[in-house]
Parts: sequence; structure tokens; C-alpha cells
Amino acid sequence: MAFVNENFLKLSDNYLFADIAKRVREFKAESGVEDVISLGIGDVTQPLCEAAVKAIHDAAAEMSVASTFRGYGPEQGYDFLREAIVMGDFMSRGIKIGVDEVFVNDGAKSDTGNFQEIVGKDNIIALTDPVYPVYMDSNIMAGRRVVKLPCLVDNGFVPELPEEHVDVIYLCYPNNPTGTVLKKDDLRKWVDYAIEHGSLIFYDAAYEAFISNDDVPHSIYEIDGAERVAVEFHSFSKTAGFTGVRCGYTVVPKEVTAVTASGKRVRLNPLWNRRQSTKFNGTSYLSQRAAEAVYSPEGREQTRAAIEYYMRNASIMGDVLRELGFDVYGGEDAPYLWVKTPENVDSWSFFDRLLRKAHVVCTPGVGFGQCGDGFVRLTAFGQHEQTLEALRRVREWLER
Amino acid sequence: MAFVNENFLKLSDNYLFADIAKRVREFKAESGVEDVISLGIGDVTQPLCEAAVKAIHDAAAEMSVASTFRGYGPEQGYDFLREAIVMGDFMSRGIKIGVDEVFVNDGAKSDTGNFQEIVGKDNIIALTDPVYPVYMDSNIMAGRRVVKLPCLVDNGFVPELPEEHVDVIYLCYPNNPTGTVLKKDDLRKWVDYAIEHGSLIFYDAAYEAFISNDDVPHSIYEIDGAERVAVEFHSFSKTAGFTGVRCGYTVVPKEVTAVTASGKRVRLNPLWNRRQSTKFNGTSYLSQRAAEAVYSPEGREQTRAAIEYYMRNASIMGDVLRELGFDVYGGEDAPYLWVKTPENVDSWSFFDRLLRKAHVVCTPGVGFGQCGDGFVRLTAFGQHEQTLEALRRVREWLER
Repeated sequence: MAFVNENFLKLSDNYLFADIAKRVREFKAESGVEDVISLGIGDVTQPLCEAAVKAIHDAAAEMSVASTFRGYGPEQGYDFLREAIVMGDFMSRGIKIGVDEVFVNDGAKSDTGNFQEIVGKDNIIALTDPVYPVYMDSNIMAGRRVVKLPCLVDNGFVPELPEEHVDVIYLCYPNNPTGTVLKKDDLRKWVDYAIEHGSLIFYDAAYEAFISNDDVPHSIYEIDGAERVAVEFHSFSKTAGFTGVRCGYTVVPKEVTAVTASGKRVRLNPLWNRRQSTKFNGTSYLSQRAAEAVYSPEGREQTRAAIEYYMRNASIMGDVLRELGFDVYGGEDAPYLWVKTPENVDSWSFFDRLLRKAHVVCTPGVGFGQCGDGFVRLTAFGQHEQTLEALRRVREWLER
Repeated sequence: MAFVNENFLKLSDNYLFADIAKRVREFKAESGVEDVISLGIGDVTQPLCEAAVKAIHDAAAEMSVASTFRGYGPEQGYDFLREAIVMGDFMSRGIKIGVDEVFVNDGAKSDTGNFQEIVGKDNIIALTDPVYPVYMDSNIMAGRRVVKLPCLVDNGFVPELPEEHVDVIYLCYPNNPTGTVLKKDDLRKWVDYAIEHGSLIFYDAAYEAFISNDDVPHSIYEIDGAERVAVEFHSFSKTAGFTGVRCGYTVVPKEVTAVTASGKRVRLNPLWNRRQSTKFNGTSYLSQRAAEAVYSPEGREQTRAAIEYYMRNASIMGDVLRELGFDVYGGEDAPYLWVKTPENVDSWSFFDRLLRKAHVVCTPGVGFGQCGDGFVRLTAFGQHEQTLEALRRVREWLER
């Protein structure tokens, strides 16, 4: 008799975006209003940059001729991309990462979900609350216990060190959903904790390209000692509009270890290499060439322009909402704004009001965890004109 | 203290292709011979078909304009591709599969490796010997017990039903590495076994496009009842030269169930959907458009031509090797030939002789399991002229 993995039955239903879509649909049907604008959109809207598009055309042309056709690539990614990553994202910041410490993937979601497979079932996992649901659900699927680290106004959305011992800590900074950041000193506390407790940090740096302040680290490896305790996830999704192209990478320094029950230290780099070689067959050649192009001078300039476009949205959103009396967090080094609901109403009630009164859609913060209730997440990924129009409507509603 | 997943430490080292490369390198250095031809190559060599290349160019052009840009796609794949799959691979054969039973992925290796995640740890897994190593290693990583089903000359490489009860059975037909097939009656025995024992069949149909004989099933769903017990994996890698493009799909019929410890039946389709939604973010839009193009009239004609090119190699290889006195299996409905070594020498000794005497590379059968010893795997994926030249050398060596 084949048995099911019963951990899957412990997952809470996650219908956040389905629920949002349903409420919007129902509102439109009831009211007859068609023109609803989303400020909650989690996906980019600007087209793929020219450099990446050209790289895809070139790669497709290569694939069409036997003499330049490429079949299976290395499971770890092509060296042309791994080298561009090392130079572009680490050496340029004075961080020493080896090419064989970089594993190219089909997007950070896969690896933030998969990486827990190489650590034991009995590790206690620490997650911030609110949190990107993938960290939570992938660990529940594997049957692990999760400890929550509340991120609140009171602690400036910087989690406190846990009171009970934890083995693995997921940190995502710049943060999804709060848009807040860790300064170097905040992050150093976590690296020190991990060194002291023999813990691991799984650091999601998917939004590092949005950082504008100099004292905010782009990589955890800017902190001494992190190369012994931290794995880092990167993505081209938001940096370069690759949400549909699919490419990211994971850094697993050779010095990072975990222990066996008998206390033997085991390096995670070869274990992850084995996992990827067994359960993954490399990222599409087309996507890897597109990602390489992001590091070219034109690619850098073009992706920078898109990020500035989004961050101009973020800046205006922050200004207008503050002027209207909202408490707004994030949005400075991240494409997300975390907005306190007025009068402490719960996330969904505010969602409904905003939809009905201003015909604007947001993402209820409670969808990211209990500590997210009383907040909504707004994103800077909209079209500029649409974003301005949405803000105009919010103003009109509140000043009515 | 973070603990490692110790199951990884139980994996046997798998250096098959690295060992082959090393021996070839050493031979070249010692002998000064540079012109070594591989008949062991597991990757396609023909370029991507025109229809797929055109689809990639078109998709890249769409991505370059905001109004047609595509960001995140559905984790399960776009309906345009799922519908093409249902029509092209199932409806056309009279098999009823729903669009929501098809999950597009980045290649069959990922899902044959990942699918075990949704079944329990205590299932006993049956694998043929020899076998594609991914099934074995992904289950060892998860800590499961594996039972081997020997595939030998005596049973025509058709595994016998197991003597002890097994919960999950992996079958790959047309088979990698033996190139042999299951006729409908053979496959029906396994479906009946699964129905009777409440077992699941994970059916890898990655090579179905190479089938030429009418009595060989292309899909396990040609067998009545399979829709209750079988999951099926497909790939565009060998069918359409997508080894570098990365696209495949998995069929999870809604009727397939497994049980909880307390005996409750749970459908696997929603569980797999949850797994994919959590740990995967969809296949590249470029790759999905390329895969869709494979089902167009031009795409079908072009991919068929490539398959015929490879199968012409297979046919000539079989004819020449048999004429030279080898026992050759497979190669009729599959791109693989499974060749008995002369005088029962072990796989690696024959590998060395073939390399030294004929300057031809094969894949030692023992690399796929103990029952593969005394065999080598040859593939039909070489360039035609190179394949002919390799055969000429083998003939010259043996007739010397």
C-alpha cells in the first residue's frame, strides 16, 4: 500500500492571491466597476531589457545550427554565467566567492524551497513573521518544527534573536513583504548567533538590487564569518525582470558545514552539488545567456533604469501615503511598502475598503503571517501612470 | 547545532561519466591518439528544429515590449502548452487526460527526482537493475528502502513481479539503459499488480517518441486502470532536442491516490500541485513556447526527421554489431543499444579494449547497476558520419 507524505496534510491552505482575485471579481460583478488598479502586484511590468532579449535571440540562433547547438549544460550552470556572477556581484564588492560556490538555478523560489532537503529533519527552523510562505511550507512538507520571529513596528521589523535555540534561520533582506532592511550591525548579530550556536543562515537576497543606502549590505558575505554559516539566494526575477525567463543562483561557500548526529562536520557545498546533480538538470541555456547579458555594460544600464523606474513609484507612493496620514515602512531599499492600516483595522477589512472606495487592490499583510495583520503590502512594480492614478483615487477617497 | 541530512552520506559515489572522461583523457595522453569517437553519448547532437527556434525568437520579441511582456506564469505551465500536450500526446491516441492533470516542468529529471517527495518515507521502492540513477539516488536521499528487480537476458529485460510487497514501482520504457520495451501485456501485469497491492507506478516515458512497433504502448494510460495507479513522466529532451532548452511534463491523473497511516485515501494530484506551487515557479516562457511549437505540423515533421536520423544510426549499429557477432538488445524502439560484452568480460574491461583498440567510447553497463555488468550501452545520438566511422573501426579491430 503506497503511503502519502502526511506532512502535506498539515499545510495550511494558502489561497491569498486566489482570495484576492475572487474578492476583486465579486466587487466588479456587484458594482459594475471595471477599472480597478492593483498596487499589490508582485510581478514586474517593465519589459525584458534589450541586452537580455538580444542574448536570447543569439542563443536561439546558436541552437539552430548543429555546430553551435548546446545540449545538456552543467547542472551547476555554465562557467560563463558563474564567472559573470562572481565578478559582478561579489568581487566588485570585495567579497571572495569561488565559481564552484555558485549554483545557477531556475529561480530563487526553487532553491529557497529545495535547500532544506540537505539538512536533517530534526533541525528547528526560525522564520520571521510575516514571511515569504515558501520557507514555511517547504519545511512543513519535510516535517520540521518552525519557530516564529515576530517583526513588528516595535522592533523596527528587525527580528530579535530567538529565546530558544534554533538550528536554521531564514532571513530575507531587503524584506518581502515589509520592504525593511537589516543594517550591517543587525546582520552581524545574526552571523554571530549562528557561529556561536552552530546554526545555519539561509539568506534570501533576491531584492538586493533595490538597495540605495550605503550602510545596507547587499550580501551577507559582507559580514565577517558569514562564509562559515550562511548560504545566500539570489534572483534575476526582480533585478532584471526575469520572472518569466527563470534564472537565479545560490551561493554555498565551501566552508559552510553542518554536523551528523555523531558530531562529524560535513560540508554543505558537495551535498548541494549532489542534490542538484540528482534532482535538477541545469537551467535553460537561453535563460543563462540572458542572465549573463545582465552583467554587460548595456545590461547593467538597462536593468538599472528599470529599477529606478520602480523605485520612483515607491518614492511617490511613500510620499503621498505619508501625506495622507499613513504609517509607511520600507520602500526605500526595496520595491515593497508595508503600510499600517488606519485605526488598527485588520488587513482584510482595509483591503475591502480600499477596493470599494478607491477601486485599488492591495495585498493583505495577514497573508504573510499573523504579525502581518493590520498591515497591507503595496508594491512598486506597477506602470507609473497607473500607480499615480491609484494614489489619486486613494487621496480622493480619504479627502472626500 | 544544524544537522545534516545523513541520508546523503549513504549515497554511493556516482562518477560514471567523470570516470569515462578521465580514462579517455589518460588514453589520449599516453597514446597520442586524438581522434576518439563516442558511441556512448547520452545527449542529442542534431540542432533544435526550426519551429522551436522560431517560437523562441517570437517569445523573446514578445518579452521585449511592455504590452506583450510575460512575467510569472502558472506554476503548472501555460494552458497553451498543456492543451497542446493533451491533444498531441493523449487525445490523439484515444487517451482521456485533463489539462489540469498535466504539470509542465523544466525536464523529466527534475520530476522523476522530485515526485517521491509527496509519498511517505516508509514506502518500499522497486527499481529495475540496471536503472537510471536518479530514481535510486533521490529515494536514498529521502531515506527509503529500495528493492531491485533484475533485468537480464533470461527475462528479456522485462522485470518479474517482486516476491516481497513493494509500494512504489519505477518503470522506464522504452528503457534507459537497455533500449528494451514492454509490450502491452507486460505492462498490464504491472498495472494489475499495482491495483491489487495498492501500489503506485512512476512511469518514465521519456523515450516514447522513438517507438516504431505498433504493439508497444506510448503511454501507460493505454492500459485500463492505470489512471488509478500511475503517474507518467515525459520529456522534450530527446523527442525534440530540448536537453539545453529544458522542458518536460508530468501527468498526475485525479484518480491516483495513496493512503495515510490510518487508511484514508488522498489524491496525489492536489498534493503535487501544492508541491509545485511551493517549490517551483513555472518553466521559462521561452521554453514553453518552444515546446508548444513541437506540436505544430512543421514541428512534428521536423522532430520526426531528427528521430528518424537517430534511429537510422541505431539500425545500422545493430546490423553491423550483430554481423560482428555481438548480442545486441534494444535499438528498435529506443535510441539505446545494450550490447553484451564478448566472452563475458566485465563492462570496464570491454570499455578499455574498445577505447584502446578501436578508439571508440561506450558507456559501461555496470554504471547503471550490478545487473548491467557484462554489458555496455551505446546510443544512436551521434552524428551519422561519426557513427559509421566508429563502426568501421570496431570492424577493423575485430577482423584484424
